[in-house]
Amino acid sequence: MAEHRHEDGPAEIHSIDARTGERREAVARATDPAALDASCRRAEALTGALEALGRQGRARLLEAMADALEAQRSGLVPLADAETALGETRLNGELTRTAFQLRFFAEVLRDGAYLEATIDHAGDTPMGPRPDLRRMLRPLGPVAVFGASNFPFAFSVPGGDTASALAAGCPVLVKAHEAHPATSLACQNALRSGAEAAGVSPDVVQLVFGVEAGARLVRHDAIRAVGFTGSLHGGRALFDLASARSEPIPFYGELGALNAVAVLPGAAAQRGLEIASGLAGSFTLGVGQFCTKPGLVLVPSGAAGDRLVSALAEAVGGLQSAVMLTARIAEAFANGAAALRSAAGVRVLAEGGAPSQATGTAGRPLLLEADSGQFSGVLTEECFGPVLVVVRYGSDAELAELIATLPTALTATVHAEENEVEGARPVLAAVEARAGRIVWNGYPTGVAVAWAMHHGGAYPATTDPLHTSVGATAIRRWLRPVAYQSLPAGLLPEELREPMPGAAIPRRIDGKLSLG
Amino acid sequence: MAEHRHEDGPAEIHSIDARTGERREAVARATDPAALDASCRRAEALTGALEALGRQGRARLLEAMADALEAQRSGLVPLADAETALGETRLNGELTRTAFQLRFFAEVLRDGAYLEATIDHAGDTPMGPRPDLRRMLRPLGPVAVFGASNFPFAFSVPGGDTASALAAGCPVLVKAHEAHPATSLACQNALRSGAEAAGVSPDVVQLVFGVEAGARLVRHDAIRAVGFTGSLHGGRALFDLASARSEPIPFYGELGALNAVAVLPGAAAQRGLEIASGLAGSFTLGVGQFCTKPGLVLVPSGAAGDRLVSALAEAVGGLQSAVMLTARIAEAFANGAAALRSAAGVRVLAEGGAPSQATGTAGRPLLLEADSGQFSGVLTEECFGPVLVVVRYGSDAELAELIATLPTALTATVHAEENEVEGARPVLAAVEARAGRIVWNGYPTGVAVAWAMHHGGAYPATTDPLHTSVGATAIRRWLRPVAYQSLPAGLLPEELREPMPGAAIPRRIDGKLSLG
Repeated sequence: MAEHRHEDGPAEIHSIDARTGERREAVARATDPAALDASCRRAEALTGALEALGRQGRARLLEAMADALEAQRSGLVPLADAETALGETRLNGELTRTAFQLRFFAEVLRDGAYLEATIDHAGDTPMGPRPDLRRMLRPLGPVAVFGASNFPFAFSVPGGDTASALAAGCPVLVKAHEAHPATSLACQNALRSGAEAAGVSPDVVQLVFGVEAGARLVRHDAIRAVGFTGSLHGGRALFDLASARSEPIPFYGELGALNAVAVLPGAAAQRGLEIASGLAGSFTLGVGQFCTKPGLVLVPSGAAGDRLVSALAEAVGGLQSAVMLTARIAEAFANGAAALRSAAGVRVLAEGGAPSQATGTAGRPLLLEADSGQFSGVLTEECFGPVLVVVRYGSDAELAELIATLPTALTATVHAEENEVEGARPVLAAVEARAGRIVWNGYPTGVAVAWAMHHGGAYPATTDPLHTSVGATAIRRWLRPVAYQSLPAGLLPEELREPMPGAAIPRRIDGKLSLG
Repeated sequence: MAEHRHEDGPAEIHSIDARTGERREAVARATDPAALDASCRRAEALTGALEALGRQGRARLLEAMADALEAQRSGLVPLADAETALGETRLNGELTRTAFQLRFFAEVLRDGAYLEATIDHAGDTPMGPRPDLRRMLRPLGPVAVFGASNFPFAFSVPGGDTASALAAGCPVLVKAHEAHPATSLACQNALRSGAEAAGVSPDVVQLVFGVEAGARLVRHDAIRAVGFTGSLHGGRALFDLASARSEPIPFYGELGALNAVAVLPGAAAQRGLEIASGLAGSFTLGVGQFCTKPGLVLVPSGAAGDRLVSALAEAVGGLQSAVMLTARIAEAFANGAAALRSAAGVRVLAEGGAPSQATGTAGRPLLLEADSGQFSGVLTEECFGPVLVVVRYGSDAELAELIATLPTALTATVHAEENEVEGARPVLAAVEARAGRIVWNGYPTGVAVAWAMHHGGAYPATTDPLHTSVGATAIRRWLRPVAYQSLPAGLLPEELREPMPGAAIPRRIDGKLSLG
């Protein structure tokens, strides 16, 4: 717990060393209602200025923020490592990704297609004359972002939600995650210095501390949308608050998922050992603290499947326990793993080495097997941490039945040989209906930042099945359409004028898309 | 009330003659839970087949449905007129619009840009190698549509929600509105005959009757999204049901709005009489039963404004009462108008002629004036029917203050002369923040079906500020992204293959949009 209440004021937020459990300096006090309101009003007042920067101005802002983050790499990475125990190699890569993400949204802005600029000139229709109509997307207004525990950079203060919201023209209030308050503050300061370098008010990104302040943020009338990455429990509670407002607002929650991997018989026979090794690496990467961690693998019965499972068990047995993000997350994992172990029809296949000292925060890799006939309940739910459940299937029909019982997830993975592609169609159709991303002969834990990436899925994977938190279209979550009917040219946003000032962008004119 | 419960079974749904109040034949019984479940399961089972028709197949389906509706025009229009009293001229126009809408979505399908097909080939990035990624939008699954009282064709069974959902590949269950059950049934039959002509299962559109069945529909696990057009009260209740599900689903409710009209001083001076005449026509069109009805006009104080208001009062005094859609709507209007009349600072400026006979369902045109200093509460809410409130303003600053108190709406209208354009920027900025469509020197009641149209706005105008129920992008409400990582070409949807079979569509390849 990083929040402690004093007798004489709001709770202090402390930084905790993830490896030692040591409570370090107080980073801030929990944001009180008056300070929260002032921050929200500042954000509201800045919305017009942020949009008025234009796409080029906001692109420069994002690039300056990326530069500032990288300039402070040598301070940020050790700080995040102390708070999360994720290791400097991983955190260096994550910081690189975070800066890349900010620059990627600068590219999205310069491209301009995201605005969906559309012009219908006045004309006749079967229903009579039609006025001049022009439509594009405009910023929603101030946005609340809830940083994730497991990505102190890429899904937290300077992460994809913040980058896409600023790109859209929406000021951001980030609720700092209790797992890494000092990193959150340092990241905010880096973003603010980037904003200043770009000549923009640093208040386009503000921080909020404390669970209560987070809940109040979701209910604040200035907030127009919420981005959240975290647990099903916490995310659903905030979703319910957002939906119950007198004026409900969109809530984009990414709540984690059971990410199933189906191994077809040919793949088990041809690449069983390789798949075993790949899976062992994937489900224990980052101590299993990924929302895309594979939580279930469906393996064919028979000798090839046996060899795969044996190799997997051997690999897991050779792994070490590792420190998890927080004591609370380690405790939740221990409880979840215990519930899985005691579920009907479940056997332990392998465990990693026990923690070398009693820090209380280590996650021990765990490989379980569950009977296919008893695969239900807790077995179909995400357990955040290094645990993987093996279920064996006897036939194509049984595989299809098992997949049909799975909840919706962020990803689903299929391993198959070339000669199994045609036979895999029913499996593919089943997983397509249940996942936002289909991975073929790979592992789900890598989520590239790219135009074609999607990170989402129907509930419980996310609270909104239409939207994504990774990739170019993440920006659309923060935009609303506005149509202009017969507006004088001088009052139109420049992207809707003819000719358009500056570099052309894709626009649809009289029904025909043009690249400009 | 069109729903009557019998002792021995589910309630009968009767058609009511809007002009006489006569209760006519029973059209159906309220859908019982077992029948509702069977309909939902049929829709679920059809999702794959509807998507498998492909864009061309669904385009032909929509065109066949449009043909069938028009072929049955001579039966549909009198039936709708008896149930709604909207008049055959208006209803003929509405049927034309409805058929146009279906064909418009066929055009959207053939264009194909709506899929957002995106291909990122495998390659190197600053974070290391990236796999092949391909993304497009896929149908969500069965959709529930709640028909509106005031558009028996265009926003009901064969309306924009149904057309866009079928285009997306989603089977539709329509909850028939109590105001026009016989029209709903006849429209469903027309759509089903269109489906059969196109060789498609007629069950892609099914009807549900009764308020209870509607609520059950929103909670049914097969339903993946809801489209609703109607009242704030009813819409919010269903939105709350959708949000409270164990697996929440998107709810796209269009709940009506106070659509403000601001007349700048120059426009009042130059075109006061013309604006008065235009406004009188707009707020009483269809007996004021439009979600885009102007409910408030802001008029400058002084002689020009006086002349405008006098002319408006004179025009309203010359109008007749007219039959409303249902006795319940007429009663709600009478209550709403009484509440407005008794609000502080409100005076009656004019009334239309009293109803010629006591049908109990006529709406009497009403023009009110409210003091600008007392403009709040009930005055800022929609009153569904032929009532318009005039508020006078003394200065630009007072106009801006008044606009800042307005709730979000579907539209906002500005009347200004050419020499007022520059001075209108602050007014425009204020209304842009509060409306989904800005109308310049026009009236909000016409909503063209066009690529650039938007019909929506933040709550209370709609429950989801990102989406629209009119225009090409209405289709996006029923689509979810799916990304494919390293999938074999033969398993990809054809729109993601290279080369793509059939006619090219716009795609983004390696970050670059191409028209194909």
